[in-house]
Amino acid sequence: MTDVLLPADVLFPADVLFPADAARRAVARELYAHAAGLPLICPHGHVDPAILADDVPFADPARLIVVPDHYVTRMLLSQGIPPARLGVPLAPDAPAAESPEADGREIWRRFATHWHLFRGTPSRLWLERVFSEVFDVPPLRAGGALGAGNADAVYDAIAERLAKPDFRPRALFERFNIEVLATTEYPLDPLAAHARLAEDGWAGRVVTTFRPDDLVDMEWPGWAGRVAALGELTGEDTATYPGFLAALRSRRAAFIAAGATSSDHGHPTAATLALSPGEAAALFERGLRGTADAADAEAFRAHMLVAFAEMSIVDGLVMQLHPGAVRNHNRWLYASHGRDTGGDIPQPTDYVRGLAPLLDRFGTDPRLRLVLYTLDETTYTRELAPLAGGYPAVYLGAPWWFLDSPEGLRRFREAVTETAGFYNTAGFVDDTRAFCSIPVRHDVARRVDAAFLARLVTEGRLPLDEAAETIADLAYHLPRHVFRLEDRD
Amino acid sequence: MTDVLLPADVLFPADVLFPADAARRAVARELYAHAAGLPLICPHGHVDPAILADDVPFADPARLIVVPDHYVTRMLLSQGIPPARLGVPLAPDAPAAESPEADGREIWRRFATHWHLFRGTPSRLWLERVFSEVFDVPPLRAGGALGAGNADAVYDAIAERLAKPDFRPRALFERFNIEVLATTEYPLDPLAAHARLAEDGWAGRVVTTFRPDDLVDMEWPGWAGRVAALGELTGEDTATYPGFLAALRSRRAAFIAAGATSSDHGHPTAATLALSPGEAAALFERGLRGTADAADAEAFRAHMLVAFAEMSIVDGLVMQLHPGAVRNHNRWLYASHGRDTGGDIPQPTDYVRGLAPLLDRFGTDPRLRLVLYTLDETTYTRELAPLAGGYPAVYLGAPWWFLDSPEGLRRFREAVTETAGFYNTAGFVDDTRAFCSIPVRHDVARRVDAAFLARLVTEGRLPLDEAAETIADLAYHLPRHVFRLEDRD
Amino acid sequence: MTDVLLPADVLFPADVLFPADAARRAVARELYAHAAGLPLICPHGHVDPAILADDVPFADPARLIVVPDHYVTRMLLSQGIPPARLGVPLAPDAPAAESPEADGREIWRRFATHWHLFRGTPSRLWLERVFSEVFDVPPLRAGGALGAGNADAVYDAIAERLAKPDFRPRALFERFNIEVLATTEYPLDPLAAHARLAEDGWAGRVVTTFRPDDLVDMEWPGWAGRVAALGELTGEDTATYPGFLAALRSRRAAFIAAGATSSDHGHPTAATLALSPGEAAALFERGLRGTADAADAEAFRAHMLVAFAEMSIVDGLVMQLHPGAVRNHNRWLYASHGRDTGGDIPQPTDYVRGLAPLLDRFGTDPRLRLVLYTLDETTYTRELAPLAGGYPAVYLGAPWWFLDSPEGLRRFREAVTETAGFYNTAGFVDDTRAFCSIPVRHDVARRVDAAFLARLVTEGRLPLDEAAETIADLAYHLPRHVFRLEDRD
Repeated sequence: MTDVLLPADVLFPADVLFPADAARRAVARELYAHAAGLPLICPHGHVDPAILADDVPFADPARLIVVPDHYVTRMLLSQGIPPARLGVPLAPDAPAAESPEADGREIWRRFATHWHLFRGTPSRLWLERVFSEVFDVPPLRAGGALGAGNADAVYDAIAERLAKPDFRPRALFERFNIEVLATTEYPLDPLAAHARLAEDGWAGRVVTTFRPDDLVDMEWPGWAGRVAALGELTGEDTATYPGFLAALRSRRAAFIAAGATSSDHGHPTAATLALSPGEAAALFERGLRGTADAADAEAFRAHMLVAFAEMSIVDGLVMQLHPGAVRNHNRWLYASHGRDTGGDIPQPTDYVRGLAPLLDRFGTDPRLRLVLYTLDETTYTRELAPLAGGYPAVYLGAPWWFLDSPEGLRRFREAVTETAGFYNTAGFVDDTRAFCSIPVRHDVARRVDAAFLARLVTEGRLPLDEAAETIADLAYHLPRHVFRLEDRD
Repeated sequence: MTDVLLPADVLFPADVLFPADAARRAVARELYAHAAGLPLICPHGHVDPAILADDVPFADPARLIVVPDHYVTRMLLSQGIPPARLGVPLAPDAPAAESPEADGREIWRRFATHWHLFRGTPSRLWLERVFSEVFDVPPLRAGGALGAGNADAVYDAIAERLAKPDFRPRALFERFNIEVLATTEYPLDPLAAHARLAEDGWAGRVVTTFRPDDLVDMEWPGWAGRVAALGELTGEDTATYPGFLAALRSRRAAFIAAGATSSDHGHPTAATLALSPGEAAALFERGLRGTADAADAEAFRAHMLVAFAEMSIVDGLVMQLHPGAVRNHNRWLYASHGRDTGGDIPQPTDYVRGLAPLLDRFGTDPRLRLVLYTLDETTYTRELAPLAGGYPAVYLGAPWWFLDSPEGLRRFREAVTETAGFYNTAGFVDDTRAFCSIPVRHDVARRVDAAFLARLVTEGRLPLDEAAETIADLAYHLPRHVFRLEDRD
Repeated sequence: MTDVLLPADVLFPADVLFPADAARRAVARELYAHAAGLPLICPHGHVDPAILADDVPFADPARLIVVPDHYVTRMLLSQGIPPARLGVPLAPDAPAAESPEADGREIWRRFATHWHLFRGTPSRLWLERVFSEVFDVPPLRAGGALGAGNADAVYDAIAERLAKPDFRPRALFERFNIEVLATTEYPLDPLAAHARLAEDGWAGRVVTTFRPDDLVDMEWPGWAGRVAALGELTGEDTATYPGFLAALRSRRAAFIAAGATSSDHGHPTAATLALSPGEAAALFERGLRGTADAADAEAFRAHMLVAFAEMSIVDGLVMQLHPGAVRNHNRWLYASHGRDTGGDIPQPTDYVRGLAPLLDRFGTDPRLRLVLYTLDETTYTRELAPLAGGYPAVYLGAPWWFLDSPEGLRRFREAVTETAGFYNTAGFVDDTRAFCSIPVRHDVARRVDAAFLARLVTEGRLPLDEAAETIADLAYHLPRHVFRLEDRD
């Protein structure tokens, strides 16, 4: 297998994700150098802020890397390894089933022996570089792959690292050069970890994000109870629609006090609707009475996006909209292990008609920033780029979830740039629970952007100096600006 | 930024848009040489024929390049610069607003200071090459970018050129090597400019195109009045459906006399419908009485496509269908500045079911040519290429509007060629109001085709001599043939 | 045209479909070498088994290569050459029309003079290599293209080959290194050719596939008659729904006895439905009485997919689902020449909601294998890869029909790998009637996979040794495993 003479640097890690062609590779290297050292701006993610507030060592390698990562556990499930055998906890009301594997080493071995399943996936790329660059695992240093033969050695090496002070969360935060990290909390969250972080004087900037989905989605079990709890938390009368709005405004203020500069909205569709206060109140009351149907629930979610846009114009929170997932499509997985365990599947999304009511009201208002994400790439050239390239309020968020990958990031730039340019996009978001993978994920995005810009340069479509300025903007200045994270300077 | 050693020709303008790889680039150059010098066939566009009939010098650089180009003004709007500040005229009934900027130099400066927004867009590519190749602007000769620092100097250089006889429209037409230029007019247009052109003996071939949208779209304000005006213009009784058809036939004859070889149809969808004369008359009459609803209007538009196909079979006009835009999506922009100012957004388009009624009747009729365009790239492999590769009447038009770009042109060839081949496509159309950009736009298409064909050659999929014949066909012979522009020879 | 200095190997056939870039090409060559010599696994196709059972020489070149290939005849139709002039038989009840051309040489000449229409298509690639590698046609050896000038010579050369023993079907089967070839039969097929093959002791493995579409699609003319015939064939009472199911089970057993390891289902949509036995029986009876409407027919097809999944869990047949074609879209072609002559057009397909009822029941059942194909590439990243990467039962079938092409195969890997990996895909299927093209089609897939994997290697995303293992898996081990073709070993 090694007879063929390969160019000396084919596998040189410094060139990961750069095109093979020598001319483009040289330019990509040069451009990447302009972005590689910039601090990380992380305006959207799902790291547990308690990790940083408490700064206790991470648990074992399996619980750090395998158990909570649904990219990993869903791939293993797809080849017949049930999540319980990987330690994924059961849902509280799960049907009788085998108990989740408790032995981290056993979980790790199962994972390691199926490493080949991840060939060609971003998980492979992320994990490989977490092993090499974050943990510098000796058994993999010579370029070997994880597998049954070295599973224990790799496990032990990572476990050893995790016990050291240099691998505590705050030490890694600093080593990762994170300038700001946004976490995501629901409105009923007391924001206790953020309060501890604010009190103890550590310099790392960790902010929250206001995610009100569980209060605007009547179909989410327990909605009325949460609305009542919102009233208690805020002292507003959430039995009425005006009181509900006042309570949400109150929580937004509390989130802003905890550093939030944006809200996040995960909806099944991109539908928006501008109801009159009376119409909205009627829907809200039907919801509380338990007489709302699916169309009511969709109308209420759609209306609330317009209501939140109105609040954003006052309080300045940047709106993020993540539509298009059919939640809990894998019903066996949902019944066994609950939400957010890898059982969601995308569906087609209509932004053009869906967003029209919101954009009619606020699309040209310079105070609104609406960052749109998608799981439906068909909307890139047909809908999203034309919207972002024509409405002052609209920005395009980074490729998300199934699309946060080298090919996904490349297709995004190739599809949206010609109509939306670079400056109507909002920079990369890592969107991750996996704290240790944050620098790798940003690095992948910076490398893919370098490769894309290098193509523009080598094809005579953009001079090198402008491409260099652009990559620094994409990696750092743009997300800082769009998400209003520079205000504090 | 210049330490890295780049291949000597990385930015050599002669290789713009050619791939970086040396082998493919060599073949692309060779293939391009077979197309670069061919005359321009421009079978679809929006140049005002009066420009050529009158041959007066163009106005100032801002009014030539910025004000009428909605690609430019919508990008600037997307970053908060209102069209009025760029001199875009207000709609007659616009709400009270600031007056449009009147000072061309001021408009130009605003444009120039936001030049970075156009990085990676076709506007950048077109304008840069208009500056360098049409106007040879000294301040940009050394490869510098437009910006605040040289805005005035560039403005002055272009203005100076525009005052010279060599930069009058007819001189440019000849220098551009345009063999035929089609403009687009509505049926009520008296075709006066074309008549002047025919009379004065200038050798340039400028033909019209029959675009009846405003007479078949009942939802377009003023429809009934235009139908009445059509009756007056033609002497037919357009209060009846048969008279309406006769009047349209009469105008088609007049357009053909003014050189037209094609009609153009811009519809929200690709729906077609073959109504009986009685059904069609009933719809038409409801429209005139003002009692037609949205479904009636859609049915009438759909039916009229079949009616026009029937006329085409008799009079030979090639039908062009441009479906899929939600017109005036940006309602603020429509209210302030009217139609066609950058506020339209694409939507998904269904060709397979939509076109079935028309294709059932005429799809295999050798007398019909139907050129299909799209704003929905998802239809390339799923619908358009299979239709064009299976129905004698169907041809695929060039990538359109948001897709008329290097990446858009590349994706078109990559997606449609394998099922439709090259000879069911209809060549490039510049589709532009921006007269000075015509040669650059054709050049971009020829270069992208050269790059695509070079890939086929270097991958052993097409011999060089056949690729060379193909690029000449795509650039010149095919559009001339498909649009029946060779008949005059 | 030959002045430019091309790299020496630009057209060297050994590198067909490999990227031009030297670094990637070197790796692609190396990887291809790991797959090139592996036996062909052909789990899905439409070769007539009588060809191999009888082993008589093929007819003339036109009847072998042109007449039965609707890729070829539809392209010629699209440029105005009616299928009858290419020898395509008329439908039994076709309207009066010219008789199909009977002279093979005349058909061949018409085909040859339009050879340029196939530039850039997979048909060109397949045929060119059939000429050179299967038939080694002297007139084309020097790299010349087929055309009017050499049509007769090529015809004669192929005809001469066909008369020789080495070019009989079984000799070619062995020379092609086919390990197993699946044909496709309807349940009423007596499987006589397969029986002859089993009896005569020839070592070639030819198996059938159970394709019940004509028994589950009430809208297919003659359905009730076929249901009655099914009763006669099996001795079950197919006037009742339980008897109908029993009869289908009986035919599945007969097909399994004839080597079948999979069923195939060609449906207009991906809809599935889990009806109660009573509901299903009611639908079935409405169908037999002739009172079922279009919604009933769709519901019955959808339900039967769930019923077949249930049977698969018992008898082990791998299910293949091919949804998304509008059959007989070209009605003139259907009226003149019948089904499967090139008149079908794809339509959008919804897998996410469509498959939910089936996946709710059996998606995580380790006994089911469901191989999904598509004509709608928009579903790759949005639906198919997430489904295959999350459900144990789901595998992704090879790009199909209009997508079985170098660009189609490339886009498939680029789109699905990051979410589904390689090991949730099911390998290549040639899906062809054209026996002589089988090795070329597999070779194209292996080359495209080599080129894709070479990109991963040169970009540092996969080590060379793992890429080499992967290409062998994709070419051989995976389809053998997924389609349960290894059981016999």
